[in-house]
Amino acid sequence: MSGSKCTRLSGALVKHVLDSVDSVLFDCDGVIWRGDQVIPGAPQVVNLLKEKGKKVFFLTNNSSKTRRMYADKMSTLGFDVTEEEVFGTAYCSAMYLKTVCKLEGKVYLIGSNAMRQELEAVGIQQTGQGPDHISGKQTDWANVPLDPEVKAVVVGFDEHFSYMKLNRALQYLTHPDCLFVGTNRDSRLPLEGGKAVPGTGCLLLAVETAAQRQAQTVGKPNHFMFDCVASQFGVERERCLMIGDRLDTDIMLGSNCGLKTLLTLTGVSTVADAEAHQKSGCAERQRMVPDYYVESVADLLPALQG
Amino acid sequence: MSGSKCTRLSGALVKHVLDSVDSVLFDCDGVIWRGDQVIPGAPQVVNLLKEKGKKVFFLTNNSSKTRRMYADKMSTLGFDVTEEEVFGTAYCSAMYLKTVCKLEGKVYLIGSNAMRQELEAVGIQQTGQGPDHISGKQTDWANVPLDPEVKAVVVGFDEHFSYMKLNRALQYLTHPDCLFVGTNRDSRLPLEGGKAVPGTGCLLLAVETAAQRQAQTVGKPNHFMFDCVASQFGVERERCLMIGDRLDTDIMLGSNCGLKTLLTLTGVSTVADAEAHQKSGCAERQRMVPDYYVESVADLLPALQG
Repeated sequence: MSGSKCTRLSGALVKHVLDSVDSVLFDCDGVIWRGDQVIPGAPQVVNLLKEKGKKVFFLTNNSSKTRRMYADKMSTLGFDVTEEEVFGTAYCSAMYLKTVCKLEGKVYLIGSNAMRQELEAVGIQQTGQGPDHISGKQTDWANVPLDPEVKAVVVGFDEHFSYMKLNRALQYLTHPDCLFVGTNRDSRLPLEGGKAVPGTGCLLLAVETAAQRQAQTVGKPNHFMFDCVASQFGVERERCLMIGDRLDTDIMLGSNCGLKTLLTLTGVSTVADAEAHQKSGCAERQRMVPDYYVESVADLLPALQG
Repeated sequence: MSGSKCTRLSGALVKHVLDSVDSVLFDCDGVIWRGDQVIPGAPQVVNLLKEKGKKVFFLTNNSSKTRRMYADKMSTLGFDVTEEEVFGTAYCSAMYLKTVCKLEGKVYLIGSNAMRQELEAVGIQQTGQGPDHISGKQTDWANVPLDPEVKAVVVGFDEHFSYMKLNRALQYLTHPDCLFVGTNRDSRLPLEGGKAVPGTGCLLLAVETAAQRQAQTVGKPNHFMFDCVASQFGVERERCLMIGDRLDTDIMLGSNCGLKTLLTLTGVSTVADAEAHQKSGCAERQRMVPDYYVESVADLLPALQG
């Protein structure tokens, strides 16, 4: 209610905040599920928000699934969701290349099958995905045959990332007019039990270092994912709530776009992290301080059921 | 002769500088060869320096060859060199683990067959090298079987670098007492004709980002490679000349160790790069300004033949 940041959202304040918004943007991993485990209460929260007339959208930096795959996973977990409500970086990267870059040419793809499908869905050709093993010697690698139609290198999550892919990206990016787009910079994919595997940020940094160029990234905290939602559904910033578990991506996106922000503690970031940013005195870091926090999105349930 | 830096080394000054040193350290790639092409005159310069009683050593950040392989390559190209005079990062990393870290345990190796051989030569066990392709799903990757004897992750040049290797390194490095060593941070391996392929720096940065830890690097500009030479051959810093083509590795190493420094223009860096560092007003950057420069090491030849 006051102007202070990082307020615990509970009691009457929950209803007050929910009444003040028409749209709710959810991050997925660490917010409504962790890996394949649904966060208890999350499906009810989403479904009740929609029953009460809120627009609900899902913004994930994960590039390993198409919108269709996400909608299927969500249905299985009990969420009442259509694929048009899902904005993953596989889809958003394809949209970025088509609508912002107006790419005319092929993509050299370091990424998943889902990225290939989303590119094809908007009519962008790509060089294929899957393993690319090394052979030959250094001079062979430097002179690897390149597809002259390639006008962009796109880097997303790729479990088949290899030295040869890194090398091909470098050779394409030697041409200064070759576009360079990354899905996101998350350094790890967190899994259940405190485990993690390497994220797209590791692969992107390797390509950037080899190419001695910086990629434009599409995912949070870049505003493009919000722009995608807003342009398709007419979302009003002042009446929109971003819910996420990461200060550096989700909460930063909300701040960058002028949204209300809510940190949930079922994922990566902690209240102590947020307080450290608040006390830092650094304007950039203070944009990672959320307006509110909850232990879990399930904390919204009583206000929605009442 | 004066106290000014980045002086062109020619005429009488060449003999003056060579008379002032007992030891000469050569970088290899970009200095005495480029790829498989010898720099004209380089073998004569090296061989005449030795005939005149100078100690000559070769310091390369390249980790893809053993000392033996380098000595063989050099002999083929006309250099009169023994393997004891060669200090590559495959050898120096093994020495670092043995003498500085006093490692008791195995190495998880991202690196070449040469690194495997140099580790074995000092009695350090490692997990093997070569391809490591992906299979299974994220939770399988996070729970990949680890060798309990591994106490260090070592990253060098590895043409078989893959997402699975990156993941294994992350899982080992989750243990805070696991050591983390990199051979070097060179972002590219330059080849003939302005071509390049990705260097170890790209791979190391990917592992550091995944592990959220910083590696200790052994290669130039870290002083360890000079320490290796000095401890084995009793080199006197004030009477030692470092010759290299890179300001950020070779010349920085020389400055870090109190050596005389000579930039040769047959490789990566230019006089304009050096002048920009000089004018920067930044003490760190000014350590990358060489005392002298030559177009090529062949410019030393007249003084040695005279």
